[in-house]
Amino acid sequence: MSEFRRDFLSGSWVIIAEHRAGRPDDFRRSSHRRVVAPCPFCQGNECETPGAVACYPDPVASSSPTSWQVRVVPNKFPAVLFEDSGRVEAPGPHENHDGGGAHEVVIESPRHIVSVAELTDAQIEYTFAAYQDRLRYWRSDKRLAYGLVFKNARAAGGASLEHTHSQLIATPMVPDIVAGEVARCEAYRRREAKCPLCDLLAYELAAGQRIVEVTDHLAAYCPYASRFPFEMLIMPRKHSGPYEEVDADVRNELAHLVRRLVARLESLLPEPAYNFWIHTAPWSHDQNHEAFHWHVHLAPRLTRLAGFELGAGYYINPVSSEEAANRLQAV
Amino acid sequence: MSEFRRDFLSGSWVIIAEHRAGRPDDFRRSSHRRVVAPCPFCQGNECETPGAVACYPDPVASSSPTSWQVRVVPNKFPAVLFEDSGRVEAPGPHENHDGGGAHEVVIESPRHIVSVAELTDAQIEYTFAAYQDRLRYWRSDKRLAYGLVFKNARAAGGASLEHTHSQLIATPMVPDIVAGEVARCEAYRRREAKCPLCDLLAYELAAGQRIVEVTDHLAAYCPYASRFPFEMLIMPRKHSGPYEEVDADVRNELAHLVRRLVARLESLLPEPAYNFWIHTAPWSHDQNHEAFHWHVHLAPRLTRLAGFELGAGYYINPVSSEEAANRLQAV
Repeated sequence: MSEFRRDFLSGSWVIIAEHRAGRPDDFRRSSHRRVVAPCPFCQGNECETPGAVACYPDPVASSSPTSWQVRVVPNKFPAVLFEDSGRVEAPGPHENHDGGGAHEVVIESPRHIVSVAELTDAQIEYTFAAYQDRLRYWRSDKRLAYGLVFKNARAAGGASLEHTHSQLIATPMVPDIVAGEVARCEAYRRREAKCPLCDLLAYELAAGQRIVEVTDHLAAYCPYASRFPFEMLIMPRKHSGPYEEVDADVRNELAHLVRRLVARLESLLPEPAYNFWIHTAPWSHDQNHEAFHWHVHLAPRLTRLAGFELGAGYYINPVSSEEAANRLQAV
Repeated sequence: MSEFRRDFLSGSWVIIAEHRAGRPDDFRRSSHRRVVAPCPFCQGNECETPGAVACYPDPVASSSPTSWQVRVVPNKFPAVLFEDSGRVEAPGPHENHDGGGAHEVVIESPRHIVSVAELTDAQIEYTFAAYQDRLRYWRSDKRLAYGLVFKNARAAGGASLEHTHSQLIATPMVPDIVAGEVARCEAYRRREAKCPLCDLLAYELAAGQRIVEVTDHLAAYCPYASRFPFEMLIMPRKHSGPYEEVDADVRNELAHLVRRLVARLESLLPEPAYNFWIHTAPWSHDQNHEAFHWHVHLAPRLTRLAGFELGAGYYINPVSSEEAANRLQAV
């Protein structure tokens, strides 16, 4: 049973998901521990996960039915799920919301690979295609308002299994952080009659100081107010709202760019933990997604979120974005 | 040189503090590593820290000049500092703010103790007195708008040194999270002509399901929408805005209550990392702090903030607050 509860004081939503307490964790006991139990994401162990909802085959034809390169399965310990029934009424002054939603895992390789940088061309391209396919699939479900694709890499990035994978959580509400970005983009557009991220990117490309890599259709740079050392933002150079509508050539370019950016991080830092997530336009917002410009946040996790970050909301970053971009470029 | 930079997309402030990269870290190389270098916070090593700005003596008279129980020193690697000069103009569409401020460390014991639960009565009482004294001191500085007292305990709580200590960071702006709480409290007060936290506490005390401990002047309970397993909120039962104005009897009661709550956590969980922080009324808001009701957030750090939390802003909590309160009460 999962439940969205709104905090009285902060106004933020929290997902209470008690069934998640039982999930496996490669890292819990020691940060040095590696694979112990048979990995449920490896080829041959498909029965350890719920049945696949999408499967991307080996491009080399094979007679084996388990010959896949990328596989999408429901999360065995979902944060949200539609099967929940019997919503509890919020008590007293409190507020809650049905915990319904979808939680899926994208297994990015049949082999036990830890880093995105080791994925083959087919695997990284299928992975970004799977994101698009699953976002499109859930977007057609009228109970849902948003789908967040995200990746947790390594223990400090929140990964509980090390076999390279990413996730999609679709929720009945637009998440606070996305709603905040949308509101700021819409306010800018009303004021300036232009897309704020198109303007920002034009400025960053001209300034040059924070740019890491520019490709035909995309640019990656370190945001001026990076919260994390070596944080990057990747966005299409041409205005585009929903990631799930992007053409295959841009999508493949993104897949390769993300793989290269992770390789840059891994050259610079020893086994860096990181997260990335795709901010696509909200589904409940189709009428007005012109104000939003999809992008990918890539956040290495070298610093810890401690009392000051939690209590004040300020992140302390010991590496400026100019220095970070310099070092990432030089790799 | 430190600098506040505002993120274009989220609107949030970030502190860029490049000089912090050099600070010592008991935990960086291995989570099992303990004290290696002489601990700068231990009695006898006072020369390893900047000179004390406040010192609370041993209640038993002693001839030794280093005989202290609690000591407050400027942070050697401050996130913010007034000595910064030569503020850089924000480039292009970006926004920044002077990084001036104060960053102090409260060393809670002369002995190398890791847990608050091991502090003596004098030490824990002096610690909470030091919070009050230093908040009062910085409040009189007109350049500052807020002081956040916080504690990072153990590596996953963001502590870089294990010797039990806490910190105060005073900033020229009211932090986003505090400003958000103040705004929600003021909106409620305009609507209901009552303090929201007085109302909330009355409801929680009557409901009883989430209460952990109630003392003469204070109550501790698990918030309905707890973001972290076993998260607690501690607040005065009688309305009170600024923590720094609290009477000594209430302050001592708080000190002992926090020590007991940490001991409950440590009975329930093996060496739990946690943070706590005091939300006092903003200083820039003295004219209207009637809407705010000071409180202490106590957040165990058993779960990791990963891609979904960072990208969506939703926290996933596998332990409901009712279950958490039950287990904390039963200890």
